[in-house]
Amino acid sequence: MKNSLYIIIVGCGRLGSHLANQLSRAGHLVVVIDNYEASFNDLSSDYSGFRIPGDATHRWVLEEAKIKKADIFFAVTHEDNVNLMVAQIAKKIFNIPHVLARVFDPKREQIFEQLGIGTICPTSIGAEMFLSAVASGLAFNGDKRP
Amino acid sequence: MKNSLYIIIVGCGRLGSHLANQLSRAGHLVVVIDNYEASFNDLSSDYSGFRIPGDATHRWVLEEAKIKKADIFFAVTHEDNVNLMVAQIAKKIFNIPHVLARVFDPKREQIFEQLGIGTICPTSIGAEMFLSAVASGLAFNGDKRP
Repeated sequence: MKNSLYIIIVGCGRLGSHLANQLSRAGHLVVVIDNYEASFNDLSSDYSGFRIPGDATHRWVLEEAKIKKADIFFAVTHEDNVNLMVAQIAKKIFNIPHVLARVFDPKREQIFEQLGIGTICPTSIGAEMFLSAVASGLAFNGDKRP
Repeated sequence: MKNSLYIIIVGCGRLGSHLANQLSRAGHLVVVIDNYEASFNDLSSDYSGFRIPGDATHRWVLEEAKIKKADIFFAVTHEDNVNLMVAQIAKKIFNIPHVLARVFDPKREQIFEQLGIGTICPTSIGAEMFLSAVASGLAFNGDKRP
């Protein structure tokens, strides 16, 4: 049984660096790719994975990250279009088994899914949580207020 | 029992406009405040609430939104600091019963909570979802791959 996974993360912003730190700490082999080298500053001092500065929409950058070995591929840059593009390359060209992309625009979620890309949309999740807070507010108002 | 709530939403970006549209459609009285009038373009044609252009960190803008009547107050601009400030004004000065702020930076979540502000952090929620995808990946690799 394989306990340590080879994980590529594209985008080293708040989410990307958080995931890289956590997954590296959990013993996985992590490679993080970002256009801006300065973004690697958010990696913690005990991060033991690789850092690759470069544009992940270029195939050679992904090959430098040894994408063919990847078990899991996360596309979490701040650009939905970039995430869609690199996720598709990972899935269709390199056949990575688990590909997941962040998408900010809920309207694009469906397009991603039609293309076979798993998505996580923080906007939709956040919206659901705010809406359920309203439902609780209704209960509160109904029960406790005239 | 009060079925229609008075809801103020500060920030009319993707999340703010989505919430405003949904809550207005559900029959609540919604007021949305944003610095940039152009952002109101994301409100749907059947949005029946109010639009207030202005800086919600200014008390008179909140008073124009009739904040004293609010049952629920959401701070969902793109700036954590703005969200913290307006949420505090709503909670401490105007005693709004339900105040909830979006915070992007997970490190700030704790500060918000110490100040008594309920928070929703899409970054933390997203991270948890990606990490549980890794856990499924592990199971998958363990079960199906040598």
